[in-house]
Amino acid sequence: MKQMKKVGSCAYLLANPVAVVSTSSVVGPVEGAGRLGEAFDYVSNDDYFGQKTWEQAESAMVSRAVGILYDKSHLTPNDTGAFFGGDLEKQCTGTSFGFRGWNLPFCGLYGACSTFAEGMALGAALIDGGYMTVAGAAASSHFSAAEREYRMPLAYGNQRQLCAQRTVTGCGAVLLSAELPTERYVAVTSFAFGKMVDAGVTDPAEMGAAMAPAAYQTITTYLEDRGKVSTDYHRIYTGDLGEVGYTILRDMTGFGWEYEDCGRLVFTPDQDTHAGGSGCGCSATVFGAYILPDMLKHPGSRVILAGTGALLSATSTLQGESIPGICHLVELECREGVKTC
Amino acid sequence: MKQMKKVGSCAYLLANPVAVVSTSSVVGPVEGAGRLGEAFDYVSNDDYFGQKTWEQAESAMVSRAVGILYDKSHLTPNDTGAFFGGDLEKQCTGTSFGFRGWNLPFCGLYGACSTFAEGMALGAALIDGGYMTVAGAAASSHFSAAEREYRMPLAYGNQRQLCAQRTVTGCGAVLLSAELPTERYVAVTSFAFGKMVDAGVTDPAEMGAAMAPAAYQTITTYLEDRGKVSTDYHRIYTGDLGEVGYTILRDMTGFGWEYEDCGRLVFTPDQDTHAGGSGCGCSATVFGAYILPDMLKHPGSRVILAGTGALLSATSTLQGESIPGICHLVELECREGVKTC
Repeated sequence: MKQMKKVGSCAYLLANPVAVVSTSSVVGPVEGAGRLGEAFDYVSNDDYFGQKTWEQAESAMVSRAVGILYDKSHLTPNDTGAFFGGDLEKQCTGTSFGFRGWNLPFCGLYGACSTFAEGMALGAALIDGGYMTVAGAAASSHFSAAEREYRMPLAYGNQRQLCAQRTVTGCGAVLLSAELPTERYVAVTSFAFGKMVDAGVTDPAEMGAAMAPAAYQTITTYLEDRGKVSTDYHRIYTGDLGEVGYTILRDMTGFGWEYEDCGRLVFTPDQDTHAGGSGCGCSATVFGAYILPDMLKHPGSRVILAGTGALLSATSTLQGESIPGICHLVELECREGVKTC
Repeated sequence: MKQMKKVGSCAYLLANPVAVVSTSSVVGPVEGAGRLGEAFDYVSNDDYFGQKTWEQAESAMVSRAVGILYDKSHLTPNDTGAFFGGDLEKQCTGTSFGFRGWNLPFCGLYGACSTFAEGMALGAALIDGGYMTVAGAAASSHFSAAEREYRMPLAYGNQRQLCAQRTVTGCGAVLLSAELPTERYVAVTSFAFGKMVDAGVTDPAEMGAAMAPAAYQTITTYLEDRGKVSTDYHRIYTGDLGEVGYTILRDMTGFGWEYEDCGRLVFTPDQDTHAGGSGCGCSATVFGAYILPDMLKHPGSRVILAGTGALLSATSTLQGESIPGICHLVELECREGVKTC
């Protein structure tokens, strides 16, 4: 008989922890001038990353993040069983062309801004399932590519609403491994796949409102499954609800949770990004630049990273559709290294 | 120690076979008038599937395919640990809105026309890894939505090139289960994730040429890993190379393989679809309508389904980029049912 790793209705526990052995974060100049500027691996002073178009810029950013990821580890692309990646551009253009030059087994995802958590969950599951020892996950977004993809090309000079978030120009990536480090490390220990929740929001500037109900549903179900409350964790992080979505979620929980949102951690108030950061690259870059280093400072700390996605397209918006939200999560734990004699 | 299920450089073997317990296929009128017309579960006489737009039509088709899939099985959405799905529209609009009404743990994929094989591989791996007993995979495409997404809106009356394929208007889906049927069934036994191959093709009408080199790479590597040749299989199926891609692959193999292409099986020559069928829905609908029933007629038969994807977007084409191809595969086996006393 096989071991069932499911607990309750949505939580899946790994039989063995899977270590995060490397992270990378590559961002644009606005992110570099934000709260975590010093902590990113690479800050470009050029939004175009030396390319001619925003889409090519995003691909250049992805490719650089993959390079740094391997440079920071003792692993190579050849060691990698599967690399999961996705972004917000149509047909995941940023990711496909970013990975084109890397000779990697590549599995494309589309989970909108939940992509990073979805990729980490799938990578950890394939490692723990005994298929491979190393897997990768990456997610990216580019402010200018996203604005013209979903809303208005920047050249129109459209005034953004105060509830709107600024899509993070950035790519974050992780390498996961079955081989546990000898030094203190962060491990993926469990995960959950979310169901879509459509609260009827139709305005593509209201991403936080569209995603908060999905975050509430997945996190609530997961905490119930695990028999935990939010304060059992060092921190619960939502991916990119921003100020508005953060507030809505706080109201939905009756002020009952302790949590933070990656979209609130990227920019400073004086950067005038309105409701904070968003995009696939938001939680992906904040993970390597802030969440993981902070966990390493707190031995034994447990964290939930809940990636929040808004499953809209420009076409669905123009056709009057509302915006389904989705939320996938991974649970992480800071563990002491395995000393070999 | 964990069991490593990897063989050679890309093949992953399941420790236990995962059964295909249900399939569904929903197609449009042109597909219904094609070779497999009688074999599809549902043929609409209306390309719009009762909706106002092509994109909404695709979502209606997806939702119907999911419904039929569960109706044909003894399972419910509640039994499902994860449902993988994707399509060709930007931000996978067809899939997202097709799944919105189903209360399912949903994992979005973007593998272009390799999505169906990618989803089956991931679903089988999560079941075999002990996470869940039931997983689903679906993929869809719509001719009219795809033409305006990638090439020309149909209203322009653009003349399609002879090398062009006709995107299949269809959604195909499978339910996979750890519980093995008592009657003869088809099981997933192994899988491989492909690497991107970019042969420098820049014309979005040349999908077959863009994808054939990726099919060649993944299938060749997989056969080497498994110590097999093409004639060891009842049939190797490529996803949607069409007539042109089929011929290119035949040339690449030095006429050395026996194989068939799903894009050659959908339409009849007098339908004037040029180089045959393509799209995520091509291999997904042909699987349920032809491949699986044919396997069940041949006890012990082994089949490779190699999904072939072209990772382009309208933006990448307009920006002069070439088209990276990718190919993921699953191996299937027709097995006798497990009789319980």
